[in-house]
Amino acid sequence: MSLLDELRARLPDDCIQADPDVVAAYAQDRALFERPGTAAVLVMPRDTADVVATMAAARAAGAPVVTRGAGTGLCGGANAVDGCVILSMHRMDRVLHVDDANRTVRVQPGVLNGALKRAVAEHGLFYPPDPASYEISSIGGNIATNAGGLCCVRYGVTRDYVMGLEVVLASGEVIHTGRHTIKSTAGLDLTGVFVGSEGILGVVTEATLKLVPLPPLPCTAVAYFADLPAAGRAILDIFRAGHEPSLMEIVDRRCLEQVNEVYHMDLDTSAACLLLIQSSGDRAVTAIEAMARCCLDQGATDVLHVTDPAEGDMFVEVRRRVWPAFERLGTAMLPEDVAVPRERLAELLAGIVAIGDRHRIDLPTVGHAGDGNMHPVLVFDGADPDAVARAEAAFADIVALALSLGGTIAAEHGIGTLKRRFLADEIEPAHLAWQHRVKATFDPTGMLNPGKAI
Amino acid sequence: MSLLDELRARLPDDCIQADPDVVAAYAQDRALFERPGTAAVLVMPRDTADVVATMAAARAAGAPVVTRGAGTGLCGGANAVDGCVILSMHRMDRVLHVDDANRTVRVQPGVLNGALKRAVAEHGLFYPPDPASYEISSIGGNIATNAGGLCCVRYGVTRDYVMGLEVVLASGEVIHTGRHTIKSTAGLDLTGVFVGSEGILGVVTEATLKLVPLPPLPCTAVAYFADLPAAGRAILDIFRAGHEPSLMEIVDRRCLEQVNEVYHMDLDTSAACLLLIQSSGDRAVTAIEAMARCCLDQGATDVLHVTDPAEGDMFVEVRRRVWPAFERLGTAMLPEDVAVPRERLAELLAGIVAIGDRHRIDLPTVGHAGDGNMHPVLVFDGADPDAVARAEAAFADIVALALSLGGTIAAEHGIGTLKRRFLADEIEPAHLAWQHRVKATFDPTGMLNPGKAI
Repeated sequence: MSLLDELRARLPDDCIQADPDVVAAYAQDRALFERPGTAAVLVMPRDTADVVATMAAARAAGAPVVTRGAGTGLCGGANAVDGCVILSMHRMDRVLHVDDANRTVRVQPGVLNGALKRAVAEHGLFYPPDPASYEISSIGGNIATNAGGLCCVRYGVTRDYVMGLEVVLASGEVIHTGRHTIKSTAGLDLTGVFVGSEGILGVVTEATLKLVPLPPLPCTAVAYFADLPAAGRAILDIFRAGHEPSLMEIVDRRCLEQVNEVYHMDLDTSAACLLLIQSSGDRAVTAIEAMARCCLDQGATDVLHVTDPAEGDMFVEVRRRVWPAFERLGTAMLPEDVAVPRERLAELLAGIVAIGDRHRIDLPTVGHAGDGNMHPVLVFDGADPDAVARAEAAFADIVALALSLGGTIAAEHGIGTLKRRFLADEIEPAHLAWQHRVKATFDPTGMLNPGKAI
Repeated sequence: MSLLDELRARLPDDCIQADPDVVAAYAQDRALFERPGTAAVLVMPRDTADVVATMAAARAAGAPVVTRGAGTGLCGGANAVDGCVILSMHRMDRVLHVDDANRTVRVQPGVLNGALKRAVAEHGLFYPPDPASYEISSIGGNIATNAGGLCCVRYGVTRDYVMGLEVVLASGEVIHTGRHTIKSTAGLDLTGVFVGSEGILGVVTEATLKLVPLPPLPCTAVAYFADLPAAGRAILDIFRAGHEPSLMEIVDRRCLEQVNEVYHMDLDTSAACLLLIQSSGDRAVTAIEAMARCCLDQGATDVLHVTDPAEGDMFVEVRRRVWPAFERLGTAMLPEDVAVPRERLAELLAGIVAIGDRHRIDLPTVGHAGDGNMHPVLVFDGADPDAVARAEAAFADIVALALSLGGTIAAEHGIGTLKRRFLADEIEPAHLAWQHRVKATFDPTGMLNPGKAI
């Protein structure tokens, strides 16, 4: 039987969509230049049984399965491969149970991160991971990519909040990994290997997530620096002094210029960078003052700190407007995602500026300074083959620079197809071979999202 | 060649110990009644290369390898199996690098938890996991069992602090799992599956651990309750009100009696239990007052709270003295380790009292109330076969009770051999089969700690 017949034999008609235009609309994520293959069909499961049925149909027809969250990925991880089933989890979007006694929540993978945040906030609880896409990205996708965000510096990444998963394996078996109590040491915990596995090991159909009490509103400080090393030293001083900022973002000069140009925000574009810091702990006022002092002590040219959350939010708005400001240029934008140890951050930033100059490419950088995680954005004319070639060269140079500074090629966006060619530069051959063996154990025929992640 | 010859061909003499008396001294952990097999030889590696060499020798001779930390395990996980190499990691005990900028530490597995805590405290940093054995248990053992402790209620368990591992696999390959930067999404993260795997997947030879700033000294509250349900309600109220205690321990009436008897501490032995609470956050004083009020509101008969850390520590001493107080009886003591959701805690405690009565066995309970994790201790005459039989029946009944309340059979001590027979009561067959498949992937011949954990 054909793949479509196999699916129709097992699933209600309204779960299956074979119209090529509709299928194509679900066939790629937001990765620039990573061309998707041609998917055969779109399946929209309503429950775990539908996912099991889809897996059976795909196995019978020998078709690959590419699972998709909300399609906001930046590395091609959810892009179709030729002849595949696109398994879009958007209908399985329920918050199943908020447990305020144990501070956990059970969710389906299609729920959007923002919707989950609101649902648990009604119980005085907080789900911290906050990728920039949080209003439009799904928890399933966040789990598949081990998504990060702005508050990771204080709260950690998605991995740190996943207690257990329901997973449909390639075999069609349904397993429940991890724990349902606050602590458990019963058996092997397979949860962690699924987090960040980009759909190559199984399909997450339910997740139990850890929550924390809703933090108080933050105090905010902003500091301009005339040179990048001074900013780097201030960041180190803040951590060495034992502070725990709830946000620490950096915006470089090129970003300041463009945000100013578009939004007329009266920013100091003579500065090398702007550092944004928030503290939401109990002693937020004292802490933010102390962190502002670290910036001044390291030569910040202008430092402001505010206790009014609304005023603080205006400062953070500078950072949020970086991407929209460059979007106005109407050019191609390819975000990088590397991280280095905190003490190498200034070198990374300076090296990125040099790479932009060398390849004659507009290369603003914004990033999660507290995590050493930078997002330089390659801004260029996507229709000009020479500009594209220069962008690709700059992209590879940034990855190599991060590695030379003891960093990682992919801090929080994942590998997808975009960064697969760099993986062997970071991960030793024996370790990578073992990752492939684990993949082969769970998916011996290689039907799940082939060609991605590892 | 014999196993001993294979080892001698690959390792310096001082790494090998074949004296049966010495070998026997390393052949078991602290699990009561879990009889170890007869080990063939003890190996004491000085570095990763020695572990690789041991693995090669064991493979060549077809001998099993049982890795051992400090031998403080309570479930038989480190007990010898017949003909095995005991691989004792105690010589590999160095703190390799404290990174105060990134709040991480690289350690060898043999370092004791307490020694690590002191080493990082010099940098103003804190390694939270604190099993009761922390002064005498090793980090490698803590990782192998995913050890918990008293401050887990605030800080989480060992799993939450392991960023990356160096692991020697059965094949002799050395892999470096996880991440070395604060964030990374490069490839599959195999770290989590090794944490809590009790030596059945590989030998951890190095670990990169996450640290947090040293917390301020805590404030303490103690509350007596006349009945267990009232204590259970107070615990729920505290969490539902959004508090984050840094310690929340419970001691039942039988414990109070025995501690009083031995140490004359003037405790109220008419109470059903004593709840101990600490808060070490920035607003510790306010928080401890609010939590004390939750106890009063739920009918606590006597509540005290103190801001002086030394005075608070005296209250915690009650809890610490439970085990020594019962040791004075000179009887056998078998600690249980189950956990239930917080809202079922009072039922668990009451059920445990009933089980003690039913089996006519002394059954005091102490535990991590904030995690729903109880340690009832079976106290009985180990030389009396009838008492042993009653203890074993009570043990199984406690496990069954925890499961019936939605709990786990093993909260923080692991499975070892002690709880293997209960594993299928908690973990569904398909999931357990997949755990065995993962084991078989990493260790196809089953040479690593056979018969343990799963």
